Amino acid sequence: MALRARALYDFNSENPGEVSVRENEILTLYSEQDIDGWFEGMNSKGERGLFPASYVEILRNDASTYNNNSCNTSGETYPDSRYANVPSGDSSFKPPNKHSYNHLSTTSHRGNTQGKGSATVSRNLNRFSTFVKSGGEAFVLGEASGFVKDGDKICVVMGQYGPEWQENPYPFTCAIDDPTKQTKFKGMKSYISYKLTPTHTQTQVNRRYKHFDWLYARLVEKFPVISVPHIPEKQATGRFEEDFISKRQKGLMWWMNHMTSHPVLARCDVFQHFLTCNSTDEKAWKQGKRKAEKDEMVGANFFLTISTPAAPLDFQEVESKIDGFKTFTKRMDDSTLQLNATVNEFARKQISGFKKEYQRVGFSFKILSQAFEMDQQPYSSRLNQAISFTGDAYEAIGDYFAEQPNKDLDPIMDLLALYQGHLANYPDIIHVQKGALTKVKESQKHVEEGKMDPSQAEGINERCNIISCATLAEIQHFHHIRVRDFKAQMQHHLQQQITFFQKITSKLEEALQKYDNA
Amino acid sequence: MALRARALYDFNSENPGEVSVRENEILTLYSEQDIDGWFEGMNSKGERGLFPASYVEILRNDASTYNNNSCNTSGETYPDSRYANVPSGDSSFKPPNKHSYNHLSTTSHRGNTQGKGSATVSRNLNRFSTFVKSGGEAFVLGEASGFVKDGDKICVVMGQYGPEWQENPYPFTCAIDDPTKQTKFKGMKSYISYKLTPTHTQTQVNRRYKHFDWLYARLVEKFPVISVPHIPEKQATGRFEEDFISKRQKGLMWWMNHMTSHPVLARCDVFQHFLTCNSTDEKAWKQGKRKAEKDEMVGANFFLTISTPAAPLDFQEVESKIDGFKTFTKRMDDSTLQLNATVNEFARKQISGFKKEYQRVGFSFKILSQAFEMDQQPYSSRLNQAISFTGDAYEAIGDYFAEQPNKDLDPIMDLLALYQGHLANYPDIIHVQKGALTKVKESQKHVEEGKMDPSQAEGINERCNIISCATLAEIQHFHHIRVRDFKAQMQHHLQQQITFFQKITSKLEEALQKYDNA
Repeated sequence: MALRARALYDFNSENPGEVSVRENEILTLYSEQDIDGWFEGMNSKGERGLFPASYVEILRNDASTYNNNSCNTSGETYPDSRYANVPSGDSSFKPPNKHSYNHLSTTSHRGNTQGKGSATVSRNLNRFSTFVKSGGEAFVLGEASGFVKDGDKICVVMGQYGPEWQENPYPFTCAIDDPTKQTKFKGMKSYISYKLTPTHTQTQVNRRYKHFDWLYARLVEKFPVISVPHIPEKQATGRFEEDFISKRQKGLMWWMNHMTSHPVLARCDVFQHFLTCNSTDEKAWKQGKRKAEKDEMVGANFFLTISTPAAPLDFQEVESKIDGFKTFTKRMDDSTLQLNATVNEFARKQISGFKKEYQRVGFSFKILSQAFEMDQQPYSSRLNQAISFTGDAYEAIGDYFAEQPNKDLDPIMDLLALYQGHLANYPDIIHVQKGALTKVKESQKHVEEGKMDPSQAEGINERCNIISCATLAEIQHFHHIRVRDFKAQMQHHLQQQITFFQKITSKLEEALQKYDNA
Repeated sequence: MALRARALYDFNSENPGEVSVRENEILTLYSEQDIDGWFEGMNSKGERGLFPASYVEILRNDASTYNNNSCNTSGETYPDSRYANVPSGDSSFKPPNKHSYNHLSTTSHRGNTQGKGSATVSRNLNRFSTFVKSGGEAFVLGEASGFVKDGDKICVVMGQYGPEWQENPYPFTCAIDDPTKQTKFKGMKSYISYKLTPTHTQTQVNRRYKHFDWLYARLVEKFPVISVPHIPEKQATGRFEEDFISKRQKGLMWWMNHMTSHPVLARCDVFQHFLTCNSTDEKAWKQGKRKAEKDEMVGANFFLTISTPAAPLDFQEVESKIDGFKTFTKRMDDSTLQLNATVNEFARKQISGFKKEYQRVGFSFKILSQAFEMDQQPYSSRLNQAISFTGDAYEAIGDYFAEQPNKDLDPIMDLLALYQGHLANYPDIIHVQKGALTKVKESQKHVEEGKMDPSQAEGINERCNIISCATLAEIQHFHHIRVRDFKAQMQHHLQQQITFFQKITSKLEEALQKYDNA
């Protein structure tokens, strides 16, 4: 007879591979042995997958122990044993980067100690859940703590269209120029160095791709609901080829634009260190690097630094906005994917097909003019020259078509690539906010059932408000830069196209003039 | 034992299926029966094929009769019997149209009677040779005769670049409008009627394709060294489809343009009858038709109507010019074929590929704007509209590309089709002139050998001069209209292209403006 278990609580699957179970549902287990706190089995609907081992009790004989919830509403609310199998905070909060691993686990231990009461709201048991990984859960459950310096304060203000990040009072931009090949270890190792010149310091620093990469990892770790722009992809081969370097430079410029445009990212210490630390002062660089890697205000603690508008948000409205944005990102993702494919194909066609067509016509005109030159009629010679010139003009137009995508389609594709990065970030951001909102709902239910102290639920509410404010501010920022970027890019594209067609027209006019005296 | 024969004269094969034979060569005959004046057999080299029956004598026994040329230099030069097997004038001069068949054969009979002496120069025995068919040979041999009325006189004058047709003192053009479907026999038969309005009468006449076809046949028959423009091709099915009618109308307009531009064709009676005869006066039409079909001044006799400049041409110079033109036509033919193929493919690409590419981009922009509309941000709505407009603009540009070939590539193809017709005419025209020149060389040789009276050779010279003048005049005319037509067409094409790209530019500028307040 198969091993059976009864679900003690509702569990809603959040990730592929998990199955939902309802309280008191009888489940079939494939093994008594849990995998990292999860049982593999089948629910009563026949759905197979993982569910938290701590949510079920194994039925060993007919006199199965019914767990009577109503009997166990002690001050501790649930017996600790229920969480015996819960993956520990250490692994739940495993940060993406090893440097901060010990550091963060300390934080969450501290959180565990301080926020014991918050255990009344069920934890997300999928330790790969973004809500958990990002520190969102720990923060909502009140497990995050740290000393927030005034300089670390990040303000969300109420703007015309809802919460928004307080503007950077000292906006700046940063140029990225002259990628140059450098060598070290007596030429044994080569790398490309980029010259960065931020407008607020006007001091040039040199940075390598690996520095961008390091910075990116810090930012992702630090900011749970901020969409950190993706840096251009790594590439193993052809790293020193001109095309690749130029493409990467453009990618880094776009990235830099989005970094400096972001009120929070632009001002954060690690980015400022990256932008301003003298590239020849190895010691200062390493100091800043260590400091960044030891930053306590990352993940769950990042939310501690956020100050919100006085009036709390209406969570129903927040939920509706977030759901609307989720739909929006899906549509935008689909349409940018399609636009990217179309534009890419259009570029390919212009470089190959269009060019070929115009050049073939040009060549045929030239062949005709050469045939005409055989007639030796003096009154024909100017016509022959004009036709030959027309042939050249068409060949030039073919070249114009081939050169054009670099000017107006490639920038569109660069922009789309950057936005595809953002759009890939948003499901996680939304997930964190949704996780927080779920906690609020759970806590409300618990309060209603008298299982939770209203003040605890209030704390969850407040922290969910912080996450919601940050999320909506980030969404607002996204829309603002999206409108700014797409407007600029469409204008640039159209201007380039107009210049392009005017250039063709001029060439044709030049050709037409040749016939005047023919 | 095989039937054998001896060649009486040299015969050089001019066409596939013929074999060359040398005087006194012993030949094998496959049959004693000649086929239309030709024997089938094998020469001493083992080459098989046809040779003129009149050029050989059959060897019936060992005491074969040697024909001693030197013994036969009487006033009649060669015994008549030698030509016993020569294909008769009737078949040699078989005209391309049955109507004029009897008529022309009468002419050549007359020629045979009058120009007996010219038989000293060998005839071209291939009755399919253009030189023979066109009447060129008959004329050169002095066999053509007829009364040339003053009105029929066609003048070749010495122009700046050599002989040219005297200009038409009353130049005119002729519009072809409103092709309309007509029926007769109570709707049993349908046809398309075209309205022709010549500028010199300003009177509209209606003509059908079959009238053009009849006229074309008359012109080809009448003018041996004039390149009669080809009428658009017949088409059995889809005759009443709009595209076909429009295409045919354009073809007929081009044809008409070349007809009215030609100093000789424009003025000839049959063409004038075609242009001016009242379409409702059936009787007058038939009268003119009969008159044209009975015209005696066709083929060989056409040359009688030509008056040349006083100073005869230098035949060496003529030969060099003709050879140059032959090379030219070959090159022009090749290059127009290539241009036609290229332009045709270019048109196809614009109608399908180019259109598709622009419309795909347009569609993707529209999809993007639709995705953006989901954001509901008020500051985004103008951008969304602008992007949507840009999408429409690209779709419109796609349509522009698809519509354009009709305006600037189709006319080029129409022009090329007309010129390909001319280029197909020229080998025959050149053949006639070359045939005449060969006769001159033969006659000179005969005079040198004392076999011909110098006055006869002089006649051949004079007639070859007439043919040469006409041919060079025709070539000059060809070059003139070619330069005129290609100049006009290239200008038209470039103007259309400029307008096209300006239209695209305007559309893009319109789209760009939409972003001004976005």
